[in-house]
Amino acid sequence: TTKMKIFALNSNQKLAEEIAEHVGLPLGKSSVTHFSDGEIQINIEESIRGCDVFIVQSTSEPVNENLMELLIMIDAVKRASARTVNVVMPYYGYARQDRKARSREPITAKLVANLLETAGATRVIALDLHAPQIQGFFDILIDHLVAVPLLSDYFLNDSGIDLDNVIIVSPDHGGVTRARKMADRLKAPIAIIDKRRPRPNVAEVMNIVGNVDGKTAIIIDDIIDTAGTISIAASALVKSGAKEVYACCTHPVLSGPAVGRINDSVIKELIVTNSIALPEEKKSPKIKQLSVAKLMAETIVRVHEQKSVSTLFD
Amino acid sequence: TTKMKIFALNSNQKLAEEIAEHVGLPLGKSSVTHFSDGEIQINIEESIRGCDVFIVQSTSEPVNENLMELLIMIDAVKRASARTVNVVMPYYGYARQDRKARSREPITAKLVANLLETAGATRVIALDLHAPQIQGFFDILIDHLVAVPLLSDYFLNDSGIDLDNVIIVSPDHGGVTRARKMADRLKAPIAIIDKRRPRPNVAEVMNIVGNVDGKTAIIIDDIIDTAGTISIAASALVKSGAKEVYACCTHPVLSGPAVGRINDSVIKELIVTNSIALPEEKKSPKIKQLSVAKLMAETIVRVHEQKSVSTLFD
Ligand SMILES: Nc1ncnc2c1ncn2[C@@H]1O[C@H](COP(=O)(O)O)[C@@H](O)[C@H]1O
Ligand SMILES: Nc1ncnc2c1ncn2[C@@H]1O[C@H](COP(=O)(O)O)[C@@H](O)[C@H]1O
Repeated sequence: TTKMKIFALNSNQKLAEEIAEHVGLPLGKSSVTHFSDGEIQINIEESIRGCDVFIVQSTSEPVNENLMELLIMIDAVKRASARTVNVVMPYYGYARQDRKARSREPITAKLVANLLETAGATRVIALDLHAPQIQGFFDILIDHLVAVPLLSDYFLNDSGIDLDNVIIVSPDHGGVTRARKMADRLKAPIAIIDKRRPRPNVAEVMNIVGNVDGKTAIIIDDIIDTAGTISIAASALVKSGAKEVYACCTHPVLSGPAVGRINDSVIKELIVTNSIALPEEKKSPKIKQLSVAKLMAETIVRVHEQKSVSTLFD
Repeated sequence: TTKMKIFALNSNQKLAEEIAEHVGLPLGKSSVTHFSDGEIQINIEESIRGCDVFIVQSTSEPVNENLMELLIMIDAVKRASARTVNVVMPYYGYARQDRKARSREPITAKLVANLLETAGATRVIALDLHAPQIQGFFDILIDHLVAVPLLSDYFLNDSGIDLDNVIIVSPDHGGVTRARKMADRLKAPIAIIDKRRPRPNVAEVMNIVGNVDGKTAIIIDDIIDTAGTISIAASALVKSGAKEVYACCTHPVLSGPAVGRINDSVIKELIVTNSIALPEEKKSPKIKQLSVAKLMAETIVRVHEQKSVSTLFD
């Protein structure tokens, strides 16, 4: 039977280790270093001939460095005669550049898909892509996992909140489907934040569709980046009578002023996954990280055993 | 008739401006910035529909950042309906990873060629590729320029050295063809530095093949990176009786301790091109930069006019 091997790159070593532990394998031996001029040097230090190889890498910050590491690793794995080259991308960078919003813009999310294929990936395992349409950017196989069950389970089992008094809030119209899925699991109603700009260069108005009065509001989003929208949304919810506000998301990008804004906001707790590793300076008592390792590990094993993974998706 | 437009990215703005000036065009308007999370955002700010577009970018340090800028720009230019997407790469990063020297290594120079094609480049204009075989990594058109004429002309016309007393030195066996070409132009003999390691973990021995006694030695290489070899070679030449030592190369990578080593070495002057821009901290009175702008500009114009560029190559 075909052997499987799991390799970690530099973006998210700890998650890769957890995944390997769940699978019951040691991580494959490889080294990723830099030459004096900053070029990436990769060495795979054990045979992978004929193996199903899984490479774990999030293309989070530094995104270009992490993406090139991944592409070069794929090339090395392919040339070392792996049977399949599976890329496990808990976070898919450039996902927000998924369409031409203005003339003469690139569509970098599609470019990245093409680059992965060109390098030699035969399958991609992704989590909560910013737009599900990105699946269609690939001609190779793609498995699209979702974190709603994991996030919901936290609120159901570990948060200690009164589940009879919860309302799930989508921070924009694009996120309503996700909020609906969480609401189903928590048997809760939903509300939507309806942002609009009355005139150009005039501040946005946040209008809340739904009654949050006296409720525990849980805002759910896929990515929290600078945390501007989410902090303002939380204030708007409190103004509209919400008793307390929680927030959750799959991908804690948390760039620039994000952590300070979360800390200063009325948000009681922000629940995120470890799709993106948080460096020390981005940690906060308000931010709680749940692990997607088990979900990823189960997916990897099923892919390797050529079993369906669809039951893991919802 | 088809219009041409030249765009600069961030690696080498000054060279791009010089090229545009030689061509007699303003640089195309575009902006390359970063989102808060480090993702590259590119905006092309003028119409390029139906144009021959030339993008000037060296994939020098920071190589992964510069390469991703280039790939995303190619994508944007292609989607903006340019007629041709020509990539002008004065320095081609990852060129030294051009073969599997050990098992399970990537061949990143080939990967980069594939990535450029996948992004949508229709032609590449390169200068002194580390191995000329890299031309064969491309299925699209590639023009391969050389800097030997430019470097030779400096010694012939501007250096003030006694041309009757010169010997051209190749720092290794791989560089003999290049040294031979320069020697032909200077009507000078050649010498070769023959490095060998008597046993593993024993210092290399530098043996000079050729008589340098009383001569002005000019070492020529394609890339000077950490400048270790070249400084030691220069000392070996002086020990063997060379009166003075000059060095020249096309691509001043000059990483890590390079500039200090050049300054501390017996090398009188190091002549390089501006294929890689030198930041202030890499400048030195010993290092002289010649411009490849005219060579690049002539090539661009001939490509645009669909004329042969081969006379520029040698
Ligand atoms: N890394 C990024 N940070 C912030 N905004 C981005 C980023 N990448 C793309 N965008 C912009 O975000 C918008 C897409 O986001 P969305 O409307 O949420 O799908 C587009 O207008 C993009 O220009
Ligand atoms: N950026 C780099 N810096 C130093 N060495 C490199 C770099 N890229 C590749 N190499 C190594 O340089 C060797 C090729 O150089 P060469 O023998 O001069 O063609 C290979 O063994 C590579 O592993």
